Amino acid sequence: MYRNFDELLAQIRSSADKKRVAVAAAHDHEVLECAVMAKREKIAEFILIGKEKETREILTVLGENPDDWKIMDEPSDAKAARTAVSLAHSGQADALMKGLLHTSVFLKALFDKEYGLIPAGSLVSQITVSEFPSQNRLVLITDCAVNVAPEYGDKVKIIKNAVSLAHRLGMDCPRVACITPVEVVNPKMPSTIDAAMLSKAGERGQISGCVIDGPLTLDNALSVEAAQTKHISGSVAGNADILLIPDLCAGNVLDKALRYFAQLKTGSAVVGANVPIIMTSRSDSAINKLHAVALSVI
Amino acid sequence: MYRNFDELLAQIRSSADKKRVAVAAAHDHEVLECAVMAKREKIAEFILIGKEKETREILTVLGENPDDWKIMDEPSDAKAARTAVSLAHSGQADALMKGLLHTSVFLKALFDKEYGLIPAGSLVSQITVSEFPSQNRLVLITDCAVNVAPEYGDKVKIIKNAVSLAHRLGMDCPRVACITPVEVVNPKMPSTIDAAMLSKAGERGQISGCVIDGPLTLDNALSVEAAQTKHISGSVAGNADILLIPDLCAGNVLDKALRYFAQLKTGSAVVGANVPIIMTSRSDSAINKLHAVALSVI
Repeated sequence: MYRNFDELLAQIRSSADKKRVAVAAAHDHEVLECAVMAKREKIAEFILIGKEKETREILTVLGENPDDWKIMDEPSDAKAARTAVSLAHSGQADALMKGLLHTSVFLKALFDKEYGLIPAGSLVSQITVSEFPSQNRLVLITDCAVNVAPEYGDKVKIIKNAVSLAHRLGMDCPRVACITPVEVVNPKMPSTIDAAMLSKAGERGQISGCVIDGPLTLDNALSVEAAQTKHISGSVAGNADILLIPDLCAGNVLDKALRYFAQLKTGSAVVGANVPIIMTSRSDSAINKLHAVALSVI
Repeated sequence: MYRNFDELLAQIRSSADKKRVAVAAAHDHEVLECAVMAKREKIAEFILIGKEKETREILTVLGENPDDWKIMDEPSDAKAARTAVSLAHSGQADALMKGLLHTSVFLKALFDKEYGLIPAGSLVSQITVSEFPSQNRLVLITDCAVNVAPEYGDKVKIIKNAVSLAHRLGMDCPRVACITPVEVVNPKMPSTIDAAMLSKAGERGQISGCVIDGPLTLDNALSVEAAQTKHISGSVAGNADILLIPDLCAGNVLDKALRYFAQLKTGSAVVGANVPIIMTSRSDSAINKLHAVALSVI
């Protein structure tokens, strides 16, 4: 189990088999900065798809020899996205990264049925992985960026996606906390209804590979003391590995708080497709972008 | 303007005029611990209403001479709450504090029209005040505990309540950020609609004593860099004093994240009544409870 991003990066660095990330519309300073860092740190190899001339110029500015990179000239954003997706489809790329193109153009190629990257019945969701220094471990928080107002069925899929990443991070049976504003069932608060249903579905084996509990407030989920004060027992309270956040408002605020108030090291993963997706935000720090690449290749 | 809680506590300590806090159902170890600390720190005086014998015993355990305290024997929770409220109504107490009784019993007395503590048209709301160390200042976050799903009109009142506290904290014209998951207007995300309306209402003078901007994500609101990356101008972006959170799910998660991930010093205020209300949670640390008292008497 990785306790922090440095441990995760060290493990990936030591692996002989480097994963290949196909970047759609790679001709962007920030995107290439991240790729250069990841390559130098031996985290991943890259296939850069986009405007070749600009890509080579930026690589040179970043102190790289462009001839050391695999570059595919494709000036059209839509075609660059399709090329990246087809490389993933044919097994020539292990992960996809969004470069300098509109999210909608990137997603259109990703969801194109021709390539079948989205399995039937699956849901694409986002996970923020954050270091939790006071307990020296990683915590997964989902969904902070993609699903606006997930319903019960969506939440089941969001949990499954997160459990899958947690397993890859070495958590054998991750503890999932369904986060709500109160720790009791309240029919007027839909998030507490979903939490009760998800807990029971976990007990009944409808969601496997994890232990689920909720409704739990964030402090109940992360602090054993706070959970004891409220007389909440069970293995999840105080020790949650995965925090299921009820909606995007709450997820986004929490995600941002971790970086701007707590200044924690985080990484973002987009999961649910047949290959991991890297979609970083321009305002992410370089190191958090590197963590996103690491999460996609682990 | 107070940059942190220590400055706030120092100012209150130096004031000759000590405010009187009436505590309803004071016979509780944690509540009295907070009162003892506040009295020793010269933050406030207290009127302890509740079971007198138990109250005196706990005070003794806490190293106090019960005779130094104003105690009113009232074993009934409902009557203790009514007594506290009537003291505030008659001007004999400056603030109210909830002790060991059900919130509903406490609120029933507070909202009793006989005492008129809730002005017509006003809304009771909660504000978390947090230190923001990287900018060496205080930030107000509202509502993290009381209003579940405030509508536009409620949000106007929540902002007014927060602006009033901000003024008392020395912020002449606080900058209010309406927090949303995206920084653009999106008719499918109601929080962005409210944010646009609140911004414009601020410009038109319908909400005064502050500057309002939104929709803004948390990072746009608190980081000048993040705001610049998104090309957001204006005086609020990156420098928000007040964060209006769209609903309780998001507010509660943010409030808890500040304490459990960021381990920041915070204090909670319940405002909108004619007197400040102190309602701390059992899981609050002693120092954060002291901050709540300080916020009620400033």
